[in-house]
Amino acid sequence: MDLSRIREDFPLIAGHPELVYLDSAATSQKPRRVLEALDRYYRELNANVHRGAYRLSVAATEAYEEARRRLARFLGAEEREIVFVRNTTEALNLVAYAWGLRNLKEGDEILVTEMEHHAGLVPWHLVAGLKGARIKAIPLTEEGRLDLSALDALLTERVKVVSLVHMSNVLGTINPVAEIAKKAKAAGALVVVDGAQSAPHLPVDVKALGVDFFALSGHKMLGPTGAGVLFGRYEVLEGMMPFLGGGEMIREVHVDRSTYAPPPGRFEAGTPPIAEAIALGEAAQYLMEVGMERVYAHDRALLDYALKRLAEVPDLRVYGPMGPDRGGVIPFTLGRLHPHDLATFLDGEGIAVRAGHHCAQPLHRKLGLAATARASFYLYNTFEEVDRFVEALLRIHTRYRAWL
Amino acid sequence: MDLSRIREDFPLIAGHPELVYLDSAATSQKPRRVLEALDRYYRELNANVHRGAYRLSVAATEAYEEARRRLARFLGAEEREIVFVRNTTEALNLVAYAWGLRNLKEGDEILVTEMEHHAGLVPWHLVAGLKGARIKAIPLTEEGRLDLSALDALLTERVKVVSLVHMSNVLGTINPVAEIAKKAKAAGALVVVDGAQSAPHLPVDVKALGVDFFALSGHKMLGPTGAGVLFGRYEVLEGMMPFLGGGEMIREVHVDRSTYAPPPGRFEAGTPPIAEAIALGEAAQYLMEVGMERVYAHDRALLDYALKRLAEVPDLRVYGPMGPDRGGVIPFTLGRLHPHDLATFLDGEGIAVRAGHHCAQPLHRKLGLAATARASFYLYNTFEEVDRFVEALLRIHTRYRAWL
Repeated sequence: MDLSRIREDFPLIAGHPELVYLDSAATSQKPRRVLEALDRYYRELNANVHRGAYRLSVAATEAYEEARRRLARFLGAEEREIVFVRNTTEALNLVAYAWGLRNLKEGDEILVTEMEHHAGLVPWHLVAGLKGARIKAIPLTEEGRLDLSALDALLTERVKVVSLVHMSNVLGTINPVAEIAKKAKAAGALVVVDGAQSAPHLPVDVKALGVDFFALSGHKMLGPTGAGVLFGRYEVLEGMMPFLGGGEMIREVHVDRSTYAPPPGRFEAGTPPIAEAIALGEAAQYLMEVGMERVYAHDRALLDYALKRLAEVPDLRVYGPMGPDRGGVIPFTLGRLHPHDLATFLDGEGIAVRAGHHCAQPLHRKLGLAATARASFYLYNTFEEVDRFVEALLRIHTRYRAWL
Repeated sequence: MDLSRIREDFPLIAGHPELVYLDSAATSQKPRRVLEALDRYYRELNANVHRGAYRLSVAATEAYEEARRRLARFLGAEEREIVFVRNTTEALNLVAYAWGLRNLKEGDEILVTEMEHHAGLVPWHLVAGLKGARIKAIPLTEEGRLDLSALDALLTERVKVVSLVHMSNVLGTINPVAEIAKKAKAAGALVVVDGAQSAPHLPVDVKALGVDFFALSGHKMLGPTGAGVLFGRYEVLEGMMPFLGGGEMIREVHVDRSTYAPPPGRFEAGTPPIAEAIALGEAAQYLMEVGMERVYAHDRALLDYALKRLAEVPDLRVYGPMGPDRGGVIPFTLGRLHPHDLATFLDGEGIAVRAGHHCAQPLHRKLGLAATARASFYLYNTFEEVDRFVEALLRIHTRYRAWL
């Protein structure tokens, strides 16, 4: 697959040459193959899964389970360890509720980090509030890395869960998950990873990472909205009660009690996002054909080029670590311009970037900022787009110089 | 809109004239308009909602919120009372967890019915188990109706929730929800309705029903998989803590605590099923243009014709009430033939029906059956398809007569 021609695979990108889409950390665009998989499902295959004796339903079930196999290959997991959910957020809530409500006790601690997305914090707030558990965080260094010198002291025997983000959606920092997981497991804690940004952009092998749970969102990795994955180590899933109750996840139901199916079915209540999971399988297949090493190398080349060129823009400040432990995400500010205004001005130049706290208020509080603008790259972005981005910033700087 | 030409709107139906699809109670087929709305979203509009300052994101947000308005019109609700979820199952779990975990106490009771789908039972089993609450059921009459003579005695002051299905997915029984809700509210109970079968097939006005919550699945009402709706009365939603925690549902987040946005955002954590919700809005619009009275009248006409013709099939038994309080669902058995075999034989004749316990084991236990076969109708089914269904049953009867 030729990366220089990959843009032609993306109808929204190919159809809008005037647009420079630099918001893939929020959601990615979709290749034609994924849209065709969705459409084909509804035109040729649509039936409910698992419960039908007729051919259409059997074919739909087979396509759905093939998607599970593809996601298992994508993550280096077993098929029975792949639970289809809506998105990373639901996956992390599943763990917090299904594991946390039944295992956390008063005085227990949950260790997070100061760079978590809200999806890695708020589920624990809700469940810890019900159980009387406490939440504490691995602090950040000035460069925006985890301060691992604090880890040993934080990992007391009260810590029952270590929940951390693999790659920051704001700073792009790639955390040393394997190293942290090893220490956390040795301390007897469950390890839960928010992979929303890493799964789309880095090669991920959940077994090599040594984690218990790993969550991803399909829509950030070329798939449709409405489908994501929770990987759970089978031994852990097997010992858990269900999260959502309903059809398909049961063994036997009476009016007042029920028993449950084995994983992964135990965690997929009701009609799943069938078409979306199948299309997500197609997206994972597409990424595997490109090769995740190449996806990361491309993001990283764009990042390096952008960081070099952005130095030309006066009053521009970029945040995050400048070493190799970073993906293609650039949070930035321009003088005293409000990031929302900055994003609006860039929109006027055809550049789509996001502005705000990016669902990471604690991190922004640490940075001493209410908001940043954020540009993020993916396999369909080009060096020429980086040039257009930088040139737009230079024009904005010239135009609003007096206000900066 | 001419119902006789409506089949042409459905690519899977129009493209497979050999297929008689009688499984819409499991999932419906989709009109072209819905598939086009999905495809158009990804080709022209795809961006994450609510958080973007650029035009694409603003347009995506507007389309998503327009879908919310359409669903509000569809249900007779206010826009702020419409929460997008994955499906009915998630909606009912949302209520059980978010309301139940924080309001139920030991000794409290949850009143369900013997005809609930598992989605109306298992969430309460999980939450009641955590809180020490009890579950009891309104019994059924021989005809498959709720035995309302038992209601007053069951509605003690210990009952904090009445959770019931509007239309049975097995028997087709349409329950007198308004009447039950009135008594339940007078007794101080919260009223939760599983509308998975009623919303697609009957005119529904949640205000006229007088319920607190009403849940539906988009995929059963011409929409895509992956999106459903929880209607919640605003005063109730406003007093509730969130269910899932994550992005977008917050007001302020610290490492160890958070405060929450007002409804409906409070209950939509993370990236929602954007494309699916927009396409569900298109499905609701399509149904409103046809007119739900006409949809129900068509289902009902097919049901009456089918019940009459099925009487020609020896050894065939049909279950459920025979009065006007019934939608287009026919559970049946043929002599001693196992329902799964019966469904497989019908599949061989091009007729798609479902067989099993239809996620209603307590109801089947009451019927004294492990399983039934089930045919269900929708607006694209025809009288000629009923004939093909009955003729296939007659051929199967002749072929397997010795085994019945």
